[in-house]
Amino acid sequence: MNINKQMEFLIEAEKLKNIMRQSPLPFGRKENDAEHSWSLCLYATVLSEYAPEGTDLLKCLKMLLLHDMVEIYAGDTYLYDEAANTDREKRELEAADKLFSPLGEQGEELKGLWLEFEKNETQEALFANAMDRFQPVILNYLSEGKAWKEHNVNSRQVLEKGREKIGKAPKPIKDYYLNIIKISVEKGYLAP
Amino acid sequence: MNINKQMEFLIEAEKLKNIMRQSPLPFGRKENDAEHSWSLCLYATVLSEYAPEGTDLLKCLKMLLLHDMVEIYAGDTYLYDEAANTDREKRELEAADKLFSPLGEQGEELKGLWLEFEKNETQEALFANAMDRFQPVILNYLSEGKAWKEHNVNSRQVLEKGREKIGKAPKPIKDYYLNIIKISVEKGYLAP
Repeated sequence: MNINKQMEFLIEAEKLKNIMRQSPLPFGRKENDAEHSWSLCLYATVLSEYAPEGTDLLKCLKMLLLHDMVEIYAGDTYLYDEAANTDREKRELEAADKLFSPLGEQGEELKGLWLEFEKNETQEALFANAMDRFQPVILNYLSEGKAWKEHNVNSRQVLEKGREKIGKAPKPIKDYYLNIIKISVEKGYLAP
Repeated sequence: MNINKQMEFLIEAEKLKNIMRQSPLPFGRKENDAEHSWSLCLYATVLSEYAPEGTDLLKCLKMLLLHDMVEIYAGDTYLYDEAANTDREKRELEAADKLFSPLGEQGEELKGLWLEFEKNETQEALFANAMDRFQPVILNYLSEGKAWKEHNVNSRQVLEKGREKIGKAPKPIKDYYLNIIKISVEKGYLAP
């Protein structure tokens, strides 16, 4: 591969630090996609003992590093924004082509990892996706439900959105997640 | 390991998003440690083909995810601040104990990875450290030398600070780095 093309990709990637998510950080401001991606990689590393035997952690980390990069062109789509989610897939596929194709063969590999994450079928994608559904709930809990209240999200919606991805998560993670939601409802951070 | 202890660690880790660096981002504000760590992981992944054969990329990524976490307690020490660098090592060692010891055996492993990065002797540490010296120069170049000018840093100092870490970097990365510094001097972004 040509290092100039790779550096152009890495420079373009800086824009991820300017894509804002809805998740509030414990010290006030909202989280951006780049720091969110760092968090998920750290979560996956620290919690890797719970992943099913044979899970390739390196593959999980590559997926998590890349998983939101299409949002540089497609923007962040809030999980509970049903309207914006209808054409999310199409917008993100176009973005993936724009983002990865300048890297040729290496870009194909990276796009493949992103698609694998999106399809959420392999062991690695399942573990990576579980992190992506788990961490925002922790942030919301830490902020006493700030984003949930802002967007009128209730526990039924959180559980519904988490069902598939957390449903297939390793048991200790799933249990921790369900307990956080239970406590959040009890404390009034999240509507029942 | 106990997931409650691991979650306490991951929640404490959120603070890294509030540790500011001197590097300016292309869109204006300064970079924080968490998004910097994400960038270095992405750099290492995209540029991994240049690492010496047998380099364990997973180990590099774990090091890069963790490498600045001691700054949660020790703060960011600017590379060109000679006074602050005199007791950096001591402050960071104490911070590492505070940060990693609650994780028991797993904490020992993580602290070991951080120490390996700091010692900069193994193949993985050398590659990871090269990324850590490379990326800030790219950011400074993209901002037309903003942090260099702010701190009266000249090209002699940049090359001196980069000598050991970039000196041992893979050739395409070293060449790219030296060329960026050359162009930065030519364009007046960096004093000669």
